[in-house]
Amino acid sequence: MNAEIIAIGSELLTPFHQDTNSLFITEKLNTLGVEVTFKSVVGDSRANLVSVARIALARTDIVIFMGGLGPTEDDLTRESVSEAMRLPLKRDPDLLADLYARFAARRIKMPENNQRQADVLDGAASLPNAKGTAPGQWIDGQYEGRDKFVMLLPGPPYELKPMFEEQCLPRLREKLPPLFIATRTLKVAMMGEGECDSRSAPIYRKYERVQTTVLFKHGEVQLHLRGRASTALEAQDMVEKLAEELEDELGDHVFSTAGESLEQIVGYFLQMRTATLAVAESCTGGLFSQRITSIPGSSRYFLGGVVSYDDEIKKLLVGVPPMLIKEHGAVSKPVAQALAEGIRRKCNSTLGVGITGIAGPGGATDEKPVGLVFIAVTDGRVTDVVERQFPGDRERIRWFASQLALDMVRRKLL
Amino acid sequence: MNAEIIAIGSELLTPFHQDTNSLFITEKLNTLGVEVTFKSVVGDSRANLVSVARIALARTDIVIFMGGLGPTEDDLTRESVSEAMRLPLKRDPDLLADLYARFAARRIKMPENNQRQADVLDGAASLPNAKGTAPGQWIDGQYEGRDKFVMLLPGPPYELKPMFEEQCLPRLREKLPPLFIATRTLKVAMMGEGECDSRSAPIYRKYERVQTTVLFKHGEVQLHLRGRASTALEAQDMVEKLAEELEDELGDHVFSTAGESLEQIVGYFLQMRTATLAVAESCTGGLFSQRITSIPGSSRYFLGGVVSYDDEIKKLLVGVPPMLIKEHGAVSKPVAQALAEGIRRKCNSTLGVGITGIAGPGGATDEKPVGLVFIAVTDGRVTDVVERQFPGDRERIRWFASQLALDMVRRKLL
Repeated sequence: MNAEIIAIGSELLTPFHQDTNSLFITEKLNTLGVEVTFKSVVGDSRANLVSVARIALARTDIVIFMGGLGPTEDDLTRESVSEAMRLPLKRDPDLLADLYARFAARRIKMPENNQRQADVLDGAASLPNAKGTAPGQWIDGQYEGRDKFVMLLPGPPYELKPMFEEQCLPRLREKLPPLFIATRTLKVAMMGEGECDSRSAPIYRKYERVQTTVLFKHGEVQLHLRGRASTALEAQDMVEKLAEELEDELGDHVFSTAGESLEQIVGYFLQMRTATLAVAESCTGGLFSQRITSIPGSSRYFLGGVVSYDDEIKKLLVGVPPMLIKEHGAVSKPVAQALAEGIRRKCNSTLGVGITGIAGPGGATDEKPVGLVFIAVTDGRVTDVVERQFPGDRERIRWFASQLALDMVRRKLL
Repeated sequence: MNAEIIAIGSELLTPFHQDTNSLFITEKLNTLGVEVTFKSVVGDSRANLVSVARIALARTDIVIFMGGLGPTEDDLTRESVSEAMRLPLKRDPDLLADLYARFAARRIKMPENNQRQADVLDGAASLPNAKGTAPGQWIDGQYEGRDKFVMLLPGPPYELKPMFEEQCLPRLREKLPPLFIATRTLKVAMMGEGECDSRSAPIYRKYERVQTTVLFKHGEVQLHLRGRASTALEAQDMVEKLAEELEDELGDHVFSTAGESLEQIVGYFLQMRTATLAVAESCTGGLFSQRITSIPGSSRYFLGGVVSYDDEIKKLLVGVPPMLIKEHGAVSKPVAQALAEGIRRKCNSTLGVGITGIAGPGGATDEKPVGLVFIAVTDGRVTDVVERQFPGDRERIRWFASQLALDMVRRKLL
């Protein structure tokens, strides 16, 4: 079974708006074993909409239209799908009464245009919309002699998501052959996509019924596993086994096996060890602290720290000896170490982190290029210092530096 | 002239990946007066790709393919467009030599598969890719007897964006009828979308040839103006006039008239006044510093600061009097003020910022609900303190707090 998702609205063809609904729908369809094979975006033009609808109906089993169900003249989804499928629209008296009642409750006269929201395709089931005035529609019909499931859903995510999940998915599940899907996500830090894939591919290729997607995103590799079988237990089993084999191969590079972020994992570990953390960060400029504190409850283990952008701040607030900066420069191994040890002492934390580097585009010298970063993590006994040369622009360099620092904290707590 | 943007790759049909390139390309095409009328996403299937290519070529003047130019078997864009347009592929000896040279420079033997990256459609111009191995292609050709501009671009944004901007746009500009588009973006801080729109709509509605899009995004309202005319001067004039009228109406809520971010504007102002900034932030946990330092060159005006997550840090590193915290609580007006004044003194900066609040979901009390934030900005003489109650989740509350703090700094420098 395959599906096409069609997002409707001229605003989706501007530089500002992006369809995010389709990711949600894709995720849900995948759990039924349905693959999305096409996605389309089309503006509020009836001719274009009819043509896009016909193309979709001709090439996929399930066609989902999102948007264009409002009361204005721009809202053409009902009429266009009606034309494409040759199913006449009928005005539903119950829906109409309901619309009038909604407006009456707000003591507003309903504009005549709104009556169109009561138009239903012949044979379609109307889907009540708890969050807005536009009802959806479900059609279990035919196109050119072949069975099709067609859905008309409202565009706003907070209307679409519950409607799809509560009213469309159960209907689809009932109609589709039973299939059980189990999923698992492994996340891997500080390993290149190439290395990760070449080490894991020989393993996941053995599992023909588990689909493995390898993504490189935000400085981490994600392995998304999706197993399908005729029983839930079997699907679960396959995915678990594969996840275990992958973990054995990738070792402690795997930081998460249930989709958690690196900052979440670091938080778990700190709490588990009843340890606290403080940071003195320069080139990341607050990004490390911001990521740590993006996790609710992080005040239990994160004490705080210093954004030591200026060298004076490194001396004044973190206690880095001026001589060190003079001798080695602010971007150096000894200064990273002094930042970590200094901030740990100042804040009286279990662990201290020091980050210094050149995020660019300016600030490079012959010996110290843009992307050069030193990171130190100390527990008061041993201080680990790592030197790295990150590629990319300011944003990427800062992100990678924060990623490496988080991973070093994680490893310190292993 | 209309265009279709086609994103290619099975990973774009998973729940994880979203095409963001198309927004960039849309923005650039709009400046030439080209509207995007369709967007499509298709997986790595040759049959599907050929069919999508044919549909696009039949319905639009400009067709832009993104992705599928790599060396693997999954990369089918060259072959598919060749089939759809009936233009044979030819292996370009210069490109091939270049590919071999790239691999030789890295002392790696080039896999045979990579040779395919030297295949060019008959009549196409090859577009060098400074950031990767996949060259793009530009075709000024025909389909079913009608003129078409067709582009094949690599999928990774950092490869696609410079290639499109530097190599495709100038070619398009040369070929398209001259149409002058002037654009302007006004950004408005700390004003609701509703209020902003109801105040500006009566103004922008008078300008029929300027298209105005109002967006609420990241805690700011953006007014995107786009005027088109037959001369550059006329287009520019219309947009300028409208921008001026809007600025008059919205006053100093408008912080940017050329698309700059709030952190950029604050940076400009600080540099203009040769002023420096330091911050002590609690609930934003580093976000304020991170936003300020996301701007290249921010080390010229940002000294740094303290992420005073724990109350001890507020006392130790910022010098907040323990009595103040005991009496008023850490989330209070006096503590915000003491944070701003304390960090200014410690860092010897022109301005000091203090941020304290409850980002949630935990930490609320009967008197102090989630979303309560106090922000102080001081120049050593006058300290402004603002209390706000922000709606939404942890992420939104933190973002809004950083937004308000930046805006208060801006106003302090006006």
